Amino acid sequence: MGEFIEFESDEDADRSKLVYTFGGVEPVLSIRPGTVIRATTLDAFGGVLNSIDKLPSQVCDSRYLNPQTGPFFLEGAELGDTLAVHFIQIEPRYKWGVSASIPFFGGLTSTPETAMLQEALPEMTWIYELDKVNRLVRYEARESKFGLDLPMDPMHGTVGVAPPLREVRSSLAPGCWGGNMDTPEMRVGATCYLGVNVEGALLSFGDGHARQSEGETCGVAVECAMDSVIVVDLIKHMQTPWPRLETDEYLMTTGSSKPMEDAFRVAHVEMVRWMSELLEISTMDAYQLVTQTVLTPVANACDKAYTVVCKMPKAFLKNVVAMKGMHEKLKKTTW
Amino acid sequence: MGEFIEFESDEDADRSKLVYTFGGVEPVLSIRPGTVIRATTLDAFGGVLNSIDKLPSQVCDSRYLNPQTGPFFLEGAELGDTLAVHFIQIEPRYKWGVSASIPFFGGLTSTPETAMLQEALPEMTWIYELDKVNRLVRYEARESKFGLDLPMDPMHGTVGVAPPLREVRSSLAPGCWGGNMDTPEMRVGATCYLGVNVEGALLSFGDGHARQSEGETCGVAVECAMDSVIVVDLIKHMQTPWPRLETDEYLMTTGSSKPMEDAFRVAHVEMVRWMSELLEISTMDAYQLVTQTVLTPVANACDKAYTVVCKMPKAFLKNVVAMKGMHEKLKKTTW
Amino acid sequence: MGEFIEFESDEDADRSKLVYTFGGVEPVLSIRPGTVIRATTLDAFGGVLNSIDKLPSQVCDSRYLNPQTGPFFLEGAELGDTLAVHFIQIEPRYKWGVSASIPFFGGLTSTPETAMLQEALPEMTWIYELDKVNRLVRYEARESKFGLDLPMDPMHGTVGVAPPLREVRSSLAPGCWGGNMDTPEMRVGATCYLGVNVEGALLSFGDGHARQSEGETCGVAVECAMDSVIVVDLIKHMQTPWPRLETDEYLMTTGSSKPMEDAFRVAHVEMVRWMSELLEISTMDAYQLVTQTVLTPVANACDKAYTVVCKMPKAFLKNVVAMKGMHEKLKKTTW
Amino acid sequence: MGEFIEFESDEDADRSKLVYTFGGVEPVLSIRPGTVIRATTLDAFGGVLNSIDKLPSQVCDSRYLNPQTGPFFLEGAELGDTLAVHFIQIEPRYKWGVSASIPFFGGLTSTPETAMLQEALPEMTWIYELDKVNRLVRYEARESKFGLDLPMDPMHGTVGVAPPLREVRSSLAPGCWGGNMDTPEMRVGATCYLGVNVEGALLSFGDGHARQSEGETCGVAVECAMDSVIVVDLIKHMQTPWPRLETDEYLMTTGSSKPMEDAFRVAHVEMVRWMSELLEISTMDAYQLVTQTVLTPVANACDKAYTVVCKMPKAFLKNVVAMKGMHEKLKKTTW
Repeated sequence: MGEFIEFESDEDADRSKLVYTFGGVEPVLSIRPGTVIRATTLDAFGGVLNSIDKLPSQVCDSRYLNPQTGPFFLEGAELGDTLAVHFIQIEPRYKWGVSASIPFFGGLTSTPETAMLQEALPEMTWIYELDKVNRLVRYEARESKFGLDLPMDPMHGTVGVAPPLREVRSSLAPGCWGGNMDTPEMRVGATCYLGVNVEGALLSFGDGHARQSEGETCGVAVECAMDSVIVVDLIKHMQTPWPRLETDEYLMTTGSSKPMEDAFRVAHVEMVRWMSELLEISTMDAYQLVTQTVLTPVANACDKAYTVVCKMPKAFLKNVVAMKGMHEKLKKTTW
Repeated sequence: MGEFIEFESDEDADRSKLVYTFGGVEPVLSIRPGTVIRATTLDAFGGVLNSIDKLPSQVCDSRYLNPQTGPFFLEGAELGDTLAVHFIQIEPRYKWGVSASIPFFGGLTSTPETAMLQEALPEMTWIYELDKVNRLVRYEARESKFGLDLPMDPMHGTVGVAPPLREVRSSLAPGCWGGNMDTPEMRVGATCYLGVNVEGALLSFGDGHARQSEGETCGVAVECAMDSVIVVDLIKHMQTPWPRLETDEYLMTTGSSKPMEDAFRVAHVEMVRWMSELLEISTMDAYQLVTQTVLTPVANACDKAYTVVCKMPKAFLKNVVAMKGMHEKLKKTTW
Repeated sequence: MGEFIEFESDEDADRSKLVYTFGGVEPVLSIRPGTVIRATTLDAFGGVLNSIDKLPSQVCDSRYLNPQTGPFFLEGAELGDTLAVHFIQIEPRYKWGVSASIPFFGGLTSTPETAMLQEALPEMTWIYELDKVNRLVRYEARESKFGLDLPMDPMHGTVGVAPPLREVRSSLAPGCWGGNMDTPEMRVGATCYLGVNVEGALLSFGDGHARQSEGETCGVAVECAMDSVIVVDLIKHMQTPWPRLETDEYLMTTGSSKPMEDAFRVAHVEMVRWMSELLEISTMDAYQLVTQTVLTPVANACDKAYTVVCKMPKAFLKNVVAMKGMHEKLKKTTW
Repeated sequence: MGEFIEFESDEDADRSKLVYTFGGVEPVLSIRPGTVIRATTLDAFGGVLNSIDKLPSQVCDSRYLNPQTGPFFLEGAELGDTLAVHFIQIEPRYKWGVSASIPFFGGLTSTPETAMLQEALPEMTWIYELDKVNRLVRYEARESKFGLDLPMDPMHGTVGVAPPLREVRSSLAPGCWGGNMDTPEMRVGATCYLGVNVEGALLSFGDGHARQSEGETCGVAVECAMDSVIVVDLIKHMQTPWPRLETDEYLMTTGSSKPMEDAFRVAHVEMVRWMSELLEISTMDAYQLVTQTVLTPVANACDKAYTVVCKMPKAFLKNVVAMKGMHEKLKKTTW
């Protein structure tokens, strides 16, 4: 059993002091492999969008979106290693979540880079009641009387390490360092593998969602502050060029790029190479196997890069041990 | 109970006489709404790729790929109506299926339009044994000793009607007329809705797969001839701009375009508008609801256009009747 | 000197009788290689949008956009040959041209495939006075007092043959058969080379523009009916996979696809292969040469596929004869 | 006349000490608006690729590509201002330039993000002799006897400031901060306008090319060290969301994104808004004007984002003063 650390985000902190990037920030803590961290994360709006009477453009500052918890310096982590983070708990901190339509942001609107001359969609805020006992998320329409209870399915939209090539990237962007991938697969029970680019890796995470669709269509899920528990570990001498996930049911690869077919291509080339290695079959045989077996949900279609996930059912991979058995090890973590 | 018609594809026919397009071909039969058709479909290679010792480039002619069964003229179908086709049976006709790596075709290679200067990937053929009793599909690696039993999950990759604007489109392309969408959702129990563009709609289908991944990575699923039973019906005065599917569990929209984000956008705009109409909520409220609820698998990432599917769980839509109840009606078809 | 034929489009014809596709239409004339054709072409709106007080949505029918003149059956043309068409004259027929903002059409708006939830841009019509003596095109702002004289630079936006694979394509789409490429390079003095896909090739052309930008930003150039003179010839046993152009100054390749980088890739792979062949250098040496020499204007960023042109200055290619000297031959045509 | 400063890059420096990012680096100098800087820049390989017998993979380190000269802290520059840099001299420092085919890098190959399973293209190096007297660049084929003299047309591929949102970006990427746009328009006589994101703006530049095509097809132009002279100035209280250029002949906007149509969209939306403002016409009238007037060359189709340039001929804009007359002012700089 590893060390146990508690780390609470300061919700009343000066917003300019929070962490909004991967890379470029001093670590808040140094941890050893195997450490369990209980940490709070702020919601993507830093808590300021908390009523249907507030609009993002009124209360948010584009410099202060998607604050992250961390970064944590993982002792011993070096370029060429892989960090593993397993999600033990992701629990909404409060009884509400929030979503919004933000001008020129989202999957079904023009944006600053998919630039058009049309007017923005109307700005609007939705508050969701979170019923933690019955695990429900309550949708209420804003412009008519209509409501719906949806299953709670908490996850972290943003998990990542410092990027390569000395880059510092906004927590709004996903990429090979992880970041804002916004996949609902990042729920309790999942292990996320991230290639280490700098000494200490510098893990951060945040952007909790009580639930979201595949694609996070309008760009804003049911955003909420989280009480999360993670365990962080290190796989020495194993490179992971793009983030991977593992659950009891699936091995998963991800790609984040534009156009979306490039995200697809990255995730599937990674899966082909991974299957080739794990099953000791040729690249062409692995390409063929992947063609008949994987599931391929879109993760986000709204961020600075799009993320596509490729999922291989472990049911097809009897007796195969991936990532040196790290997932099996971490799921047994006690704290 | 509707009329019952049997229609057998001639496997020994002159290949040049088969149907390789949507539109541009005389109907083989005229049917009334409600007609049940038992039909055979040829595999995408017209049956000529039937051994690992044959290569696509040796036995296939690019003019004769993906032959379709049909077209069927649906009496009473006019521009502005919607054709519904429900899949009652999709059963592999033989005990084998085939896949292949085809030069400059597929999702992880350059192609004639994603043109590059690199050499083609190696050409190779895989034969799958189909165990119809135990519903298994047998993968065997070509370049090492490795095999795997996969669940049989038969489907039709290509289902469509004549396109709009007098166009005639190759059965290799998907679009608003349906066509080569290659989604595994087109299995038994699904109802597919297609907007009618010309008198009689001119439904064709084919491209049976014993199974495939989401994305059909290398471009070739486990291709096989099928014995299928469909029932075809007509919804008058209802436009369906892009193909939709319905099962007992999901309402689904599709988009087929490039880049892949455009396929995503089409499918999700269609779903937002559909939810707005069915639930009598505003467009913005529907956009918000879709953002928290849908599943979004990639269907194909290898064809002339990519296809993305958007799936709304019916569990969230109590008492909602879509497409005038056509799916409920057709699933009760007896024959 | 070839045969001389006059062919006048009937401006008062029933619109439904005009030609709106490449392929799928019976030829209007059979011609021999070397034939000079004087032909009129209608504007892209068939002449019905002729006042700032009319809007496209009021006077146009989406089925009747971009009528073409032709198709001409070129005797002796077979699959594997190349048709050459040289533009001797492209002269606006009347003293006006027209442009418009059309809802959900154009390069800076969402469209049916780049689908978004935003409202359409305002619909509006601009009439341009054409001063044929001084070769000027008169822009007048609609919403303020501002005018500008632009140089007349007449061209045909749409030139093509019947597509391969039995397809019939709308005159709104460009592709390997040519079609709606909308490049300003298609002006007097240019020779366009098109691969032959069906017996007789079936050349059509139209969509005259008094001028346009590179990209045809809003999707509608200064549209006008034209009096044009072309000479059509045949290069036997030479394949041209994608349309090429030649002028006294440039050899040009084109690519039409989405996303736009695919159009770029096609045009540049074609140019690399062409240079490799003409200069008898390796593919890698040709790739290197192209990297330091070509000009690459966007042709259209608004149609069903985007078109990118790659231009190699002939000044760098002393003594090189391309396409069997066809351009040199055709520019000497007398009539 | 402004201050004059000389700044020489140390070609023998420890490579790890050079500057490879925009943002994230301490300024080397603080300058006042109007300062003339004579500076040397290293080539994109830091000088180590200097023979056809060397290959990039042997002598280059991916962490040390495209070193920049700077950053220069511009006194008084704040968020909301625009930095202007005018190129007075860009002169190749040595008598040679270099290009190369780099595995999985370039416009006509798969890359780490346009990921495919194909083998890399052959790696190869080309050395160009630079004839500074006759202003010629000498291409020599590697795999056959063929050579060609091309006009020298020196330019800087990379010019930029620190990015917004606290990001630090590799000098291999272009974006709204400028960076690796690789447009041949960045030649002597051009003024480049860059929006200021951080105090002092932090201008850097480098990546000299003796010449390149539009698109920089293989990703490597005729790379060379440069002796350059620039003058840097400041426009207070004027935002420039995306880099602009101005010459005596053109006003230019740029967009850098993926897919390439997004780069097109950004550049053209910027041009429409700029014309609307300069000519005092409505957005729709400006959209229409741009549609008939601009030139649109691709700048790069090989970098982390693609760059498209939109050029408005000043001949159409009589008496219009753009960017507060800064270009006219800077072109008169003496030193």
